[in-house]
Amino acid sequence: MSKLGQEPLFLAACHGRPVPRPPLWLMRQAGRYMPEYHEVRAKAGSFLKLCHTPELAAEVTLQPIRRFHFDASIVFSDILVPAEAMGLEVQFLAGEGPKVMNPVRTERDVDALEVPDPREASPAVFETIKILRRELPEDVPLIGFVAAPWTLFAYLVEGGGSRNYEHAKTLAFKEPEVAAKLLNTIVEYSVAHATAMIESGAQAFQLFDTWAELLSPEDYRRFALPYANEVLIRLREAIGDDVPRIYFCKGTGLYLDALREVEAEVLSIDWRLDLERARAAFPDKVLQGNLDPLVLYAGPEETRRRARALLAKTGGQRHVVNLGHGILPQTPHDSVDALCEEVRGFTCPT
Amino acid sequence: MSKLGQEPLFLAACHGRPVPRPPLWLMRQAGRYMPEYHEVRAKAGSFLKLCHTPELAAEVTLQPIRRFHFDASIVFSDILVPAEAMGLEVQFLAGEGPKVMNPVRTERDVDALEVPDPREASPAVFETIKILRRELPEDVPLIGFVAAPWTLFAYLVEGGGSRNYEHAKTLAFKEPEVAAKLLNTIVEYSVAHATAMIESGAQAFQLFDTWAELLSPEDYRRFALPYANEVLIRLREAIGDDVPRIYFCKGTGLYLDALREVEAEVLSIDWRLDLERARAAFPDKVLQGNLDPLVLYAGPEETRRRARALLAKTGGQRHVVNLGHGILPQTPHDSVDALCEEVRGFTCPT
Repeated sequence: MSKLGQEPLFLAACHGRPVPRPPLWLMRQAGRYMPEYHEVRAKAGSFLKLCHTPELAAEVTLQPIRRFHFDASIVFSDILVPAEAMGLEVQFLAGEGPKVMNPVRTERDVDALEVPDPREASPAVFETIKILRRELPEDVPLIGFVAAPWTLFAYLVEGGGSRNYEHAKTLAFKEPEVAAKLLNTIVEYSVAHATAMIESGAQAFQLFDTWAELLSPEDYRRFALPYANEVLIRLREAIGDDVPRIYFCKGTGLYLDALREVEAEVLSIDWRLDLERARAAFPDKVLQGNLDPLVLYAGPEETRRRARALLAKTGGQRHVVNLGHGILPQTPHDSVDALCEEVRGFTCPT
Repeated sequence: MSKLGQEPLFLAACHGRPVPRPPLWLMRQAGRYMPEYHEVRAKAGSFLKLCHTPELAAEVTLQPIRRFHFDASIVFSDILVPAEAMGLEVQFLAGEGPKVMNPVRTERDVDALEVPDPREASPAVFETIKILRRELPEDVPLIGFVAAPWTLFAYLVEGGGSRNYEHAKTLAFKEPEVAAKLLNTIVEYSVAHATAMIESGAQAFQLFDTWAELLSPEDYRRFALPYANEVLIRLREAIGDDVPRIYFCKGTGLYLDALREVEAEVLSIDWRLDLERARAAFPDKVLQGNLDPLVLYAGPEETRRRARALLAKTGGQRHVVNLGHGILPQTPHDSVDALCEEVRGFTCPT
C-alpha cells in the first residue's frame, strides 16, 4: 500500500505523504445535481429505500466516479440511518428534508434507544460497501461516514432540520446529564456502525459535524469535541493506523483552539476559513476543502479562478481538494468539469 | 450630556466611558415572547401594518422597557421597511417570514429601484421615533437601525429567508458589477434612512449584518465590509460624534481580521466568539453581546450562571450586555428577569 505509485492519491494525501497533485472529491458528490441520480432515485421509490437497496445505493455512489473521475468515493447513505437502527422512525418528507417522527426529548426517550449490532440493524449499508469495493476502480478509495455525535444529537432531539435547534440546545443547557447520556449512547452506536463500515471495506472514514456551528466555543468543548474524539479514538483502536480519519466541522473558523485537539488525520474545513490561515493554525493536520459550494453556481470561469487560488495556497501538498460543504442541487456540470480540470492539470511544485 | 450621572448608562458605555455597571438591552426585545405584544399585533392586523402605525409601533417598543426596564430601547420596525421604500413589494406571510415578492435579480431590476426621501416613503418610522422620544424615560436612549448593505442585498436578491442564499451569492459571484451597483444603491438609501432616524430623535444607531456569515473572509471583504463602512462613515459625516454607531456581525469569529477595520464605536458580537478573545482582538472597540439566546430557554438558573461568567470576563466596562442574536419567541420571562437582576446587581470593580 505505501509504495509510491501504488497507493491511491487520496490515501497518500490523507496520510500526509507527498503527491504529484492533490486528490479531489466532493462532499455529497452522489446526488440531486446529477440527472442519472434522479432516475435511480425514482426507481427506488423513496430516499430511504434508495439507502436500503444495496444495488441502487452502489449505483448512485458510482455515478459521479464514472462521470467526473473523482479520486475518492463516499458510500451513498444518510446520517440518519443510525437513528433508524437505534429504534427511531425516520421519514424523508418531500420538500421538508429528514424528520425523526419520535424525537428524543426526555431521559425515558434516551433509555428507550437501542444499540444493536449494525450489521443486523442496517445490513444494506455494509452490503453496499462490499459491492462498491468490487466495482470501484482500484485507485478510487471508498469513504465511510457517520454524523458526529453532537450533530446526530441535534437531529434526534429536534426531530428535523431547524433554524435554531431550540429543543436540542435547551436539552443540552437545561439537562446536561441527560444530554451526556444521549451523546454517550450515540457514541456507542456510532463506533459500532463506523467500525462495521471499515470492516466491510471502507478505506477512509469521515465524521460530519454539520451542526457544530450552533455552539459557542465553550459549549463546543462540552457537547461536541469530546464525543467526536471518543468516536475517533475508539475507531483508531478498532481499526488501526491504515484508515485515515477525517473530521468535518461546519463553522471551523469559530473553534480554532479546540480543533487543534481533534483526533483525526484530516481536518475538513468549511469555506469561511482561509486555507492559509488553516494551514498555520493546524500544522499537524492534512486539510480538506474548502471552495464555497456557491462558487460553482457562478459558472466554470469563476470556479477555475477560485480553484487556482486554492491550489496556490497549499501548493497541492497535505491537501484534499473539496468543497467547504455539500454540493448543491442546482450545481452546473460544467463548473464541476472545470474544477476537475484545474485540479488534474495542477502539478505540485517540487 | 457628558457629565457623569447625567449621561444615560447605555450612551456612556457606548462611548467607552467608565460606568458603575454595564447597560443591558436585548436585540429584538419588543416582540413575540411578550403576551402584550401579541395583543397589539392582533389589533394592527398585520406585521407591516404594525410597523406602519406610529402609535402601535411606539407602544410595542415601550412594552419591554415597562416590563424589564432595559437600559436602551430600539425602535420597532423591520429591516425590510427600506426595501418597500425602494419600490419593492414586501409581504410577511404566516409561518414563512418576510418575502420580497419581486426580488432583484438583474441589472434592469437594480436600475428600477428608487432612492426616495425616506420621510416621504416611510413616514411612520420617523413619527414613531418622535413619539418614543416623548414617552421614553430620559435615561433610556432610543436606538435606530437598518440592515447592513450585504444583509439587505441577500434578502432583496433571494426574495426571502433561505438556507444557502443561492440567488444572492450567485449574483455576487457571477455578476460582481451588478452586485456592486445594487449594494451602492442600498448604501444610498440606507444612509438617508439612517440619517433621518437620527434627525428624528434616535440617539444611537445599529447596523445589522445578519447574513455576513454566508461569506468567506475574502468575500466578506468584497461584498460586506466596504459597504457597511460606507454607511457608517457617511452617517458619522451627517450626524457627528455624539451618536454611537454599533455594528452587529453574525459570524463575528469568522472575520476577526476584517472586523478590526469596521467604522463603529461598538462591535456587537454573536455567541460563538468568546468575549475575552473578542476583547483581545478588538482593543479599540466597545463590545456588545453575547449570551446565546438559547441559554434563556434553559431557565433562570442557567441564565444567571452564564450572565455571571459574562460579567466576570469584561468586569462590566466597555461592554453593553446583550444576546449574541435576537431573543427567541418562546423565551421564558423569568429568564429575562434573572438576566436583568444579575446585570443590575453587578458592580464594576474599581
